[in-house]
Amino acid sequence: MSAPSLDAFIAYSVSTSTPTVLITSGGTSVPLESNTVRTLENFSTGTRGSSSAELFLKRGYRVIFMHRAGSKLPFLRLIPSPTNVTPELASLIKDCPNPSVKNPISTFTSHLPNLYLLPFTTITSFLTSLESTLKSLSPLSSLSMYYGAAAVSDFYLKNMPEHKIQSTVEGRRINKEDGGGGGKGFKLELDDVPKMLGEVKVWCPGVFLCGFKLETDETILTSKVERSIEKYGLDCVVGNVLSTRYEVCYLYDGGGVEEVRGDVEGGIVEGVVRRHMEYVSREGGGVRLRKEGGGKKERDERIWREMEGWKKGIFWAWESLGPVIGVALVYYIRRRKW
Amino acid sequence: MSAPSLDAFIAYSVSTSTPTVLITSGGTSVPLESNTVRTLENFSTGTRGSSSAELFLKRGYRVIFMHRAGSKLPFLRLIPSPTNVTPELASLIKDCPNPSVKNPISTFTSHLPNLYLLPFTTITSFLTSLESTLKSLSPLSSLSMYYGAAAVSDFYLKNMPEHKIQSTVEGRRINKEDGGGGGKGFKLELDDVPKMLGEVKVWCPGVFLCGFKLETDETILTSKVERSIEKYGLDCVVGNVLSTRYEVCYLYDGGGVEEVRGDVEGGIVEGVVRRHMEYVSREGGGVRLRKEGGGKKERDERIWREMEGWKKGIFWAWESLGPVIGVALVYYIRRRKW
Repeated sequence: MSAPSLDAFIAYSVSTSTPTVLITSGGTSVPLESNTVRTLENFSTGTRGSSSAELFLKRGYRVIFMHRAGSKLPFLRLIPSPTNVTPELASLIKDCPNPSVKNPISTFTSHLPNLYLLPFTTITSFLTSLESTLKSLSPLSSLSMYYGAAAVSDFYLKNMPEHKIQSTVEGRRINKEDGGGGGKGFKLELDDVPKMLGEVKVWCPGVFLCGFKLETDETILTSKVERSIEKYGLDCVVGNVLSTRYEVCYLYDGGGVEEVRGDVEGGIVEGVVRRHMEYVSREGGGVRLRKEGGGKKERDERIWREMEGWKKGIFWAWESLGPVIGVALVYYIRRRKW
Repeated sequence: MSAPSLDAFIAYSVSTSTPTVLITSGGTSVPLESNTVRTLENFSTGTRGSSSAELFLKRGYRVIFMHRAGSKLPFLRLIPSPTNVTPELASLIKDCPNPSVKNPISTFTSHLPNLYLLPFTTITSFLTSLESTLKSLSPLSSLSMYYGAAAVSDFYLKNMPEHKIQSTVEGRRINKEDGGGGGKGFKLELDDVPKMLGEVKVWCPGVFLCGFKLETDETILTSKVERSIEKYGLDCVVGNVLSTRYEVCYLYDGGGVEEVRGDVEGGIVEGVVRRHMEYVSREGGGVRLRKEGGGKKERDERIWREMEGWKKGIFWAWESLGPVIGVALVYYIRRRKW
């Protein structure tokens, strides 16, 4: 289970023109002190991210799986136990006679050539990995996809105290009832995490951008999704409600909404892949230079100016070959029996 | 690996007069919404708690191991992998030929008759389990020990919002710069978690109370420990500093400080067991009715009034037999080769 470098992994996708998806999965952690004792967590087991990864792999995609360290991994999550088995443990127990352990590990191992595992813990390591990975993916242009299933923190502490927050230090307490035995409670002021969705297509022009929206209140889901699509230029959004997220999901693509019930995980990936292949066919594999309008124009021109000579060559090749490849892929994917 | 009930486990300790320690291990989680997406976590891998449990078991104690679900477990933590193996996974892989997996599982299984596993996640489930377990332990009186190695949250949200905290809802935002593009950031007001250390000897009179203090700033450790001993009547405190906690620890018992270096885990348990056995010998197995002073007197009198007749009988038996048992135990423990 030795891993190649991420660059080598992506170079192989480029040389074989294989659709490659960057999946983010699991929750990020926000440390509240430099010497960390306390963290603010966004809860996610990684079920949706890891099961989606399995389905993308089965559909012939190559997968970069950016996951919260210790959260669920594709195939290994199928071992019937609350424990999330890591690749290290999998290699220790791969000869275990129990088929419910042996089989998932063997499936996992067989998919490793097309699966790149990239763990993170804190929001900072998440954002750093995301930017560098998307930049590395940019040569794949429209054949690349960002599938943001992770639960990313909205808030963090820009100026962290060095030491553990004291429950009794003055200035860190609020007085709820003025008189008497001193203050009670604790006031935490958090800053907004820089919104990275708007940067995705700057870091990786041409990427197909699939976002996720999880709400607990169903009534505000659609309006929040629509605002996101408008604000960040998302190509597709998977909307879901915490309590019903394994029974029903909604696929938004700016044009309309598709309700997915029954095999929700399968339905999401099928719907997203169909939209991605239509996008590849439409975009022709190149960065979207021709279709600019409004603020996009300046950005595209800057990208074009900064593009090196050989990349311009690849771009023109994509622009010409892209539609042909796209149509062939759509045909292939629609014909294939899953 | 079927578990008896906690009451049956403790009844066996009582009937065999076996010293029994309640160890709490791992960090607690504070949900920030009723439909939980975000939590505030106290970080702890459970290394100290689980390794201490192993050493108590080897010294003949019976152990109730109250642990954060998914954190490290005694013996199973020794499987060389970042994964924390649960009892469920252990039973799936127990026939694995790899000795680095098979041996820890077999040691774990052999200790199960004296090891009771009690998982928790949130601060609420922690506090509920703690109270009921300590109350169940009270018949053991001074033969029982509370060893609080868990990282318990200091703050929680008394009035949780029902739904996911919105990053854009008015009233949940603070305006750092008044004019312009609206508010930024997020203000979280937390309440103090009820201090439970002061309740431990109310729930379980006679228990030997060993607390833990973890600081990141070494200069304030001693003063904080001394304040705790005074405030909560702790019999012993293990003080440690986050960055050096595997190299050095300090054992405080109100009388002085003992520095533990080298085999820190072994040194802590040895020091705590020695103090516990001296305590058993001194206290005679009964609740401390005779040594009251100051505020303790009233509490002891209340406990005595509320005690049922048959418990008073047991108490008198303990008062008489306790010193004999205590001396015998000290003799046995000092002679035994570890």
